[in-house]
Amino acid sequence: MASFNKYRAGGSFRLADIKPGATPFKEGSRSEQLAQLDALALQLDVLQNLLHAEGSRKLLLVLQGMDTSGKDGTIRWVFSRTSPLGVRVAAFKAPSLDELAHDYLWRCHAVVPRSGEIMVWNRSHYEDVLVTAVEGWIDKKELQRRYAQINDFERLLSETGTVIVKCMLHISKDVQRARLQERIDTPGKHWKFALGDLDARKKWDDYQNAYEKALGATSTRHAPWYVIPSDSKTHRNLMVARLLIKTLQDMKLKEPPADPGLKGLIVE
Amino acid sequence: MASFNKYRAGGSFRLADIKPGATPFKEGSRSEQLAQLDALALQLDVLQNLLHAEGSRKLLLVLQGMDTSGKDGTIRWVFSRTSPLGVRVAAFKAPSLDELAHDYLWRCHAVVPRSGEIMVWNRSHYEDVLVTAVEGWIDKKELQRRYAQINDFERLLSETGTVIVKCMLHISKDVQRARLQERIDTPGKHWKFALGDLDARKKWDDYQNAYEKALGATSTRHAPWYVIPSDSKTHRNLMVARLLIKTLQDMKLKEPPADPGLKGLIVE
Repeated sequence: MASFNKYRAGGSFRLADIKPGATPFKEGSRSEQLAQLDALALQLDVLQNLLHAEGSRKLLLVLQGMDTSGKDGTIRWVFSRTSPLGVRVAAFKAPSLDELAHDYLWRCHAVVPRSGEIMVWNRSHYEDVLVTAVEGWIDKKELQRRYAQINDFERLLSETGTVIVKCMLHISKDVQRARLQERIDTPGKHWKFALGDLDARKKWDDYQNAYEKALGATSTRHAPWYVIPSDSKTHRNLMVARLLIKTLQDMKLKEPPADPGLKGLIVE
Repeated sequence: MASFNKYRAGGSFRLADIKPGATPFKEGSRSEQLAQLDALALQLDVLQNLLHAEGSRKLLLVLQGMDTSGKDGTIRWVFSRTSPLGVRVAAFKAPSLDELAHDYLWRCHAVVPRSGEIMVWNRSHYEDVLVTAVEGWIDKKELQRRYAQINDFERLLSETGTVIVKCMLHISKDVQRARLQERIDTPGKHWKFALGDLDARKKWDDYQNAYEKALGATSTRHAPWYVIPSDSKTHRNLMVARLLIKTLQDMKLKEPPADPGLKGLIVE
């Protein structure tokens, strides 16, 4: 199995060095891969239960990626065996008027994970250093200030018991074209398509550039970014599942100790 | 298969008429039952996707029951195949100071389902007509007023697109004894046990009475209560899953229509 380190963003990191079509965490036949994914999802359920039992720490998974990169699909498959009791999803869309009336981290802070919980952010505060940068809504100085604010915010979460994993689902421009075209050509999928998706696609290189800068500036020890080669959906799911399992294993979760006061207690 | 109507609470309904040990929705061998449950969970996933695609209506499942009646287990198994993208759980515990500073429906209204979503309430506003009544914190007049307020609140939700299903997980006092004792006798389960659970158990008959009254007063056409015989965990899961599926089928969910404007569009 490959090492996650190679896919971890750092200061001098170049997004173009990671091929969206790579499949380093995919092995065996198609049916073996699906069986592996199911086994990983079940393993994640066991670890989530332990996180819940321990009841003190939290896990935050941030998912970012271009349209059709598979954020919804990743959530569906990686968490196909966990209970909604322990896994929550917050989806960040274009901010509402009320959200715009606050700082950009306000709506995120409102939905950080609770003790014992896994929280998944489907898009995140990173939209505020991606789309805003590409569209020129903020200047370079403000962008740098936001990187620092984000690092500070994530350090707060980390220092108060939240383990943070951030994944960029990395697809090629060709794969996006095929996936958007499929949505257009399938009447039953029209509701998943918005014409605005094509506008962002026209700025593909600007977005890749904005991602590279943002990931480089905010991949920290306490909140690392991983680039997930995602042209293959199965590879994407397997890699995210394995990364989460490794993260939870590294937390060395423990069941709370038995309560000696309950010994011999009889229920009447 | 049995009819749900027999388990639906109504005005003259008597809780004692429904045996917690009954298994009207369980058929076949143990392995057949588990296969059925998995098939139902997958069917629920398909229906949930359709609810999401339709994007206008909502489903609210309210779960109530005595300690160890299996609210968590029901959520785990009934939603074992649905994505956390479309199913959310809100757990209501003893109210916080901030919650107590508001009316008792405030914290519930904050977490009603969004369009296209299934929301599960693990306990609910019904605690405010159960524990409060048993402990004598509110008098009969206030209790009647709350029943009416709850019916009004649920009518609002119903009239604005939320389909409501309420389930009381009905167990016998003996089964609760065995389940509490098991938690006590299993050191690894001590974290699930609170000595306060025994206090509520001492008031078993008062709680049964409070449930009977509350269910009778608030089982409406737009928000019916069902009593789920739950001594058998498998029966409980099968019955709740079937009830939800029937509810979603009765909604006659439809995929949104295709967008004729997308015909022939080519992604570049």
